[in-house]
Amino acid sequence: MTRITFCFITILMAMAPIACQSQDSIDLIVQGDHLVTMDEAMTVIENGAVAIDDGVILAVGPATEISASYSAAKVLAGDNRIVMPGLVNGHSHAAMTLLRGVADDLALMDWLNNYIFPAEVQFVDAEFVRIGTELACWEMIRGGTTTFVDMYYYPDTIAGVVDSCGMRALISATVIDQRSPDAEDAGDSIRKGSGFIERWLGKNDRITPIFGPHANYTLNADQLKATRAAAMAFGVPISIHMSESPFEVQYSKDTYGVTSIELFESIGFFEGPTIAAHVVWPTDAEIPILAERRVGVIHNPTSNMKIASGIAPVTEMLAAGVRVGLGTDGAASNNDLDMWEEMRLAAFLQKVEQMNPEVLSAETVLRMATSGGATAIGLGDTIGSLEPGKRADLIQVAFEDVHHIPTYDVVSHLVYVNDEQDVTSVVVDGAVLMEERRMLTIDTQRVTREATELAARIQSALEERNQ
Amino acid sequence: MTRITFCFITILMAMAPIACQSQDSIDLIVQGDHLVTMDEAMTVIENGAVAIDDGVILAVGPATEISASYSAAKVLAGDNRIVMPGLVNGHSHAAMTLLRGVADDLALMDWLNNYIFPAEVQFVDAEFVRIGTELACWEMIRGGTTTFVDMYYYPDTIAGVVDSCGMRALISATVIDQRSPDAEDAGDSIRKGSGFIERWLGKNDRITPIFGPHANYTLNADQLKATRAAAMAFGVPISIHMSESPFEVQYSKDTYGVTSIELFESIGFFEGPTIAAHVVWPTDAEIPILAERRVGVIHNPTSNMKIASGIAPVTEMLAAGVRVGLGTDGAASNNDLDMWEEMRLAAFLQKVEQMNPEVLSAETVLRMATSGGATAIGLGDTIGSLEPGKRADLIQVAFEDVHHIPTYDVVSHLVYVNDEQDVTSVVVDGAVLMEERRMLTIDTQRVTREATELAARIQSALEERNQ
Repeated sequence: MTRITFCFITILMAMAPIACQSQDSIDLIVQGDHLVTMDEAMTVIENGAVAIDDGVILAVGPATEISASYSAAKVLAGDNRIVMPGLVNGHSHAAMTLLRGVADDLALMDWLNNYIFPAEVQFVDAEFVRIGTELACWEMIRGGTTTFVDMYYYPDTIAGVVDSCGMRALISATVIDQRSPDAEDAGDSIRKGSGFIERWLGKNDRITPIFGPHANYTLNADQLKATRAAAMAFGVPISIHMSESPFEVQYSKDTYGVTSIELFESIGFFEGPTIAAHVVWPTDAEIPILAERRVGVIHNPTSNMKIASGIAPVTEMLAAGVRVGLGTDGAASNNDLDMWEEMRLAAFLQKVEQMNPEVLSAETVLRMATSGGATAIGLGDTIGSLEPGKRADLIQVAFEDVHHIPTYDVVSHLVYVNDEQDVTSVVVDGAVLMEERRMLTIDTQRVTREATELAARIQSALEERNQ
Repeated sequence: MTRITFCFITILMAMAPIACQSQDSIDLIVQGDHLVTMDEAMTVIENGAVAIDDGVILAVGPATEISASYSAAKVLAGDNRIVMPGLVNGHSHAAMTLLRGVADDLALMDWLNNYIFPAEVQFVDAEFVRIGTELACWEMIRGGTTTFVDMYYYPDTIAGVVDSCGMRALISATVIDQRSPDAEDAGDSIRKGSGFIERWLGKNDRITPIFGPHANYTLNADQLKATRAAAMAFGVPISIHMSESPFEVQYSKDTYGVTSIELFESIGFFEGPTIAAHVVWPTDAEIPILAERRVGVIHNPTSNMKIASGIAPVTEMLAAGVRVGLGTDGAASNNDLDMWEEMRLAAFLQKVEQMNPEVLSAETVLRMATSGGATAIGLGDTIGSLEPGKRADLIQVAFEDVHHIPTYDVVSHLVYVNDEQDVTSVVVDGAVLMEERRMLTIDTQRVTREATELAARIQSALEERNQ
């Protein structure tokens, strides 16, 4: 940022008043008819702008004031645009975009054993992960997601894609006690995961390498403890599936004599930061544990509904002070990465389950997808709201489509009406990744070709297998 | 249709073979990479086409065969396009688009008494209905809906809009025993409704004027019977809210000593064709009545979730042979008219409610939105599938967006991924209403201006009232 001074000189008749104004020269200004800041006070600024330099938000305020104070190398204009923080997708298996629609409407074990696992064993290698993650990043950026928490195989490859496409991510090295696409067993996956974390920790501010122990039914208590110890050694969080299905809770009872979250508490798993995906079946006794241990719970309403995992007690968790964010899960059980739909579904599902239309308001779910989600994944001080000092992760949304006519309440429209295709521009860490729907960091033609070719091979193989 | 004969003459060396082919000259051919016909056998034709003349589907088959047999005045090309029947929105209050987002997340009675009813009393006149219905038709056509069943005030105005925009609709004259925007009481609304039906019956093949008695808590048994008698006299169906909320069922028990659907059965209401919206709370004894009486049930998952009416037993109703279609309800409780979202929600909600991912498959809900919905509203022989002899109501959907990459199964993508903004062209009764996303029958700039101005007046009035 360099400070320069413009002088506007007006010569009028004999008078020569000189108006001098000091302007800072910065990277970027993003303007909007409404800035939905998602700050603590839920401030919405009409005709506002965000001043950004070196990846950081310098100022948020009325567009006229921002323009008077700053001279930007680039301006994203704000006519018919809402500006808001980028969305935080707290749980995904990004590369599974390549398996979307491979199999639907099946019982979980049929789906896993006859479709997903065979396809993964046969096809998931570093190339699959590269193409699938690029496809997912394209879809997420296009839809306004700026940060995601991923759990899949070949984490170095995932990190490479995130690095080049410009998103922000927590990337889990998956730990699982079975032969997986990139490891032999739990020990091997912890060892390889440690190598990944060493390579990426501190390398890129946008990328946090973490451990992703799969679940308490694919790892035993000792392996879970060993993964936590490894994470503590690096000072990184853990993401994990937790209390997702009745099966998992029953397995925990049968194997350990306690329910799922009680098990994690009893082995000291929550001593370090934890991002717990799903949490559909916490008991009344377990919810306070989640709050006290500051576990970030990621609610995945689409996946929980589509594969019939159940209805998470989101209202109760929020009331108990649990940090709850939102996620899409993988595209194989969704079948897209649309965070707007997750917001709507989260609200709708709680309202009907509680038979109370007042629960999970539009504002509440918008917070879960932004500042609340950021807090749940440990980035609450870094991103999630438009406030000076935070990293500049933000989006512009066009309110031009027929479904936005008329608009009484922008927050209502963002949650109950908006679609991914209304997002026009996306900024992460101050860099523009999409501008007026043009993707700037992803070669979409190449990704389309590669994904289509790989999917054709997968389809042929699945058809052969099922003959 | 005129029959002409083309002769392709090839002169080759000394030979002069003459290939003569007889071609019919027709209005329109619509092509697609996949035709999802929604016929009984669920036929999907790759690289197919639909031949259309005088509003009727003449032939459905491989594109090469259709091109060889017919010469069309207009061709909608099919690269990266799915062709399927237009969607049937079985329950709406179209003009309420003008009230979308006016108030959300409120208890039903607060919402109705402090927001919706005051706004309607103050603002709903013929002009409101004209603008709101035009806005709704624009939104529905844009999203691939070709037929809707409406219930609102000023039905002549609604019919005028439908007439000019080219959609197909069943338009209810609302009957309600209170002062409404267009009548004084039940008797007045039946009288005025009869006038509307006289004026529109047989006038336009796309428009069916019907009666819309509001519900059994806003009309007494005699008024319900009188409305049915009036409908029988004209030979038109009835659309009505039925068994929507616990309140309605309790009201029926308290007032009549029987549950809601039992009341309708006991007064002979089902003697004529009935389109029943919602049906969230039918008892086990009532479901067979719905099947036997061929009641068309319209499931409105978004509205039922958002205003917490409950979860309809769709799986049980389908198993019992009840005709079930889908609807959006009004945009004030949705907040859009997106039938793709209704399909997804219908599937997701049943899966999680039944804890069984196999129920309500993609194919089942796609049928509910097309041929099943057509049957539910009494148009099963006329529309709902791509079959020769049916009226030509069909749409093209682009599979070009990132969320459609890759595509293993077009039906899965239509239900679990597709958005309104993927619909590119819409044909109703053989006329093209939208072509490559250009609206051809609605002046969208005028509607935008009129809707925005009217909404500004409504917002000012509501703010004054709530001060």
